[in-house]
Amino acid sequence: MNIYDVSQKAGVSIATVSRVINGNRSVADSTRRRVEAAIKELGYEPNVFARGLGLNTMQTIGILCNDSSDIYIANAVYYLQHFLSEHHYDSILCCTGNNPDDFRKYTKMILSKRVDAVIYTGSQFILNHPEDHDNNYIVDASKEVPIFLLNGMLEGENIYCVVNDDHLAVHDAAMKLIRHGRRHIVYLYSGTTLSSQNKLSGFTDALNEAGIPNRIAYTHLGPKDIYAAKSYLESLYDQNLPMDAVMASEDTLAVGAVKFAEEHGIRIPEDLEIIGYNNSILAECTEPELTSIDNHVEKVCRTLTDNCLKVLAGEDAPHKVIRTADLISRETTVN
Amino acid sequence: MNIYDVSQKAGVSIATVSRVINGNRSVADSTRRRVEAAIKELGYEPNVFARGLGLNTMQTIGILCNDSSDIYIANAVYYLQHFLSEHHYDSILCCTGNNPDDFRKYTKMILSKRVDAVIYTGSQFILNHPEDHDNNYIVDASKEVPIFLLNGMLEGENIYCVVNDDHLAVHDAAMKLIRHGRRHIVYLYSGTTLSSQNKLSGFTDALNEAGIPNRIAYTHLGPKDIYAAKSYLESLYDQNLPMDAVMASEDTLAVGAVKFAEEHGIRIPEDLEIIGYNNSILAECTEPELTSIDNHVEKVCRTLTDNCLKVLAGEDAPHKVIRTADLISRETTVN
Repeated sequence: MNIYDVSQKAGVSIATVSRVINGNRSVADSTRRRVEAAIKELGYEPNVFARGLGLNTMQTIGILCNDSSDIYIANAVYYLQHFLSEHHYDSILCCTGNNPDDFRKYTKMILSKRVDAVIYTGSQFILNHPEDHDNNYIVDASKEVPIFLLNGMLEGENIYCVVNDDHLAVHDAAMKLIRHGRRHIVYLYSGTTLSSQNKLSGFTDALNEAGIPNRIAYTHLGPKDIYAAKSYLESLYDQNLPMDAVMASEDTLAVGAVKFAEEHGIRIPEDLEIIGYNNSILAECTEPELTSIDNHVEKVCRTLTDNCLKVLAGEDAPHKVIRTADLISRETTVN
Repeated sequence: MNIYDVSQKAGVSIATVSRVINGNRSVADSTRRRVEAAIKELGYEPNVFARGLGLNTMQTIGILCNDSSDIYIANAVYYLQHFLSEHHYDSILCCTGNNPDDFRKYTKMILSKRVDAVIYTGSQFILNHPEDHDNNYIVDASKEVPIFLLNGMLEGENIYCVVNDDHLAVHDAAMKLIRHGRRHIVYLYSGTTLSSQNKLSGFTDALNEAGIPNRIAYTHLGPKDIYAAKSYLESLYDQNLPMDAVMASEDTLAVGAVKFAEEHGIRIPEDLEIIGYNNSILAECTEPELTSIDNHVEKVCRTLTDNCLKVLAGEDAPHKVIRTADLISRETTVN
């Protein structure tokens, strides 16, 4: 028995049921009566949206992420928890690992902790073939509590998404390199998540638009593989393939590019421009310091938690917010 | 009503109560009967140690940390969750921030999620003046569930600690620099936690033992302050103070030292040796790469979770395990 069942029975949206439970006056009397009748008939005990009535709420948000040791995810989790606590919401985090088979299990686990909402942090939670039923674990969870996706996109009545436009960010950065006259750009990436795919297509689209043959193979590296990135570039170098810029889907991989250039006496940025992604603390550790795409994790998390608080208060919130990232220019690109 | 009350009533240890509940045969019959009588009289429903009986357990461990975006903490949390999940324990994490006034609140929150044990990750949870009652929030929690401290030390019947010997690690690293002939060593540190204090005293003890006046002031920086560390060293340099080595309580601060040396044409390691702490990914990002103290976060977490699983199975586990750290030599020290 959950809020979804009530909404089905009453023939209204989940948001409307939530409004009725919260005593929101914007609901027409006839609708309100229908919802109240459905609640009574089903014996539903609102424990989630019932803040306004001081009912059985835990004031706790569940957060799922794949790997809390990833720098981007760690920062996102920090901001989510911080912003929620500002509004007197506690939060609990659970790491799922990367095996999609476990996502439903961990979702159930976190729901068993009687959370008021669930936030999925990171695009890996949205599986790439939406035509099959891979993402039903999220749809099912959304029948229990409102669901918030950070960097994931899934349609659903009780699902709210905030995403970065990774495609646009990489596309624009590649265009900048092309305007600088770069024609042999290597793209280093990791993972096969939606976010990875969007970044990659941003890169290839830019090359296609500029009529540059996508000649140099990109590659598939682990997200923390500084040395694998370096070795890969060395293998291209040993084959005498021309190379005048490197773009990376993670700052770690861009660090590998800096190390490669240093070791081979290649001048940065004159002979090789390098652009990372995430604008993490690593971007400030290298010499020269990395130009990197900043996806404003703090602002993205603020938008998501604002939406979460609205939904839990029975108010409307956008189901889809797309934010743009910025290129932070440091010393590995020509100004 | 909790397991502590039962142990008091029966006049036995918490571990013994746990053994009785788990059907462990090592308990004498007379003791067993006394515990069973106490359980009955108090109406205690074992929900924590009752794995063996298939009772009301959640198989969930609560983890508290101050800041999940700190690289060391993020890695620790990752390993704790990973090792627990290998043994079919779920875990939930909650970040408390750094205000000790909130530690009791978050402890209560995580206990309200019906966890089987609580792990405190990081030395900041042990307040520095044990003579007052600052740490009673942990002692009180230990009456409900077993408590595990990572890098914290507190005595208690139901409290189990695994700590790094930070004092020894910094002491030995400082001695190495002194053996290299360094006499003007700057120590950069952040924070006032027990761990910070132990590192600092390791440094000053080494200087005292070697009869080197502790002349150059150490300083107090934020843990992520690459640029504050760099500026601080520049201020010493501008005063023409001699300086032939830098030790740092965090890799971030050591990165600042590398940047300082680069900018002023100071040769590393010939004219300036640099040693960081944590052996984090940052140590591999700089050029030259950082020598850093590795406190083996993975092994520390493994020891802690092994102890946790033993205690939850009603077995004995050591209340205090001290692990040693190693110096990982890279390019910022003389071999």
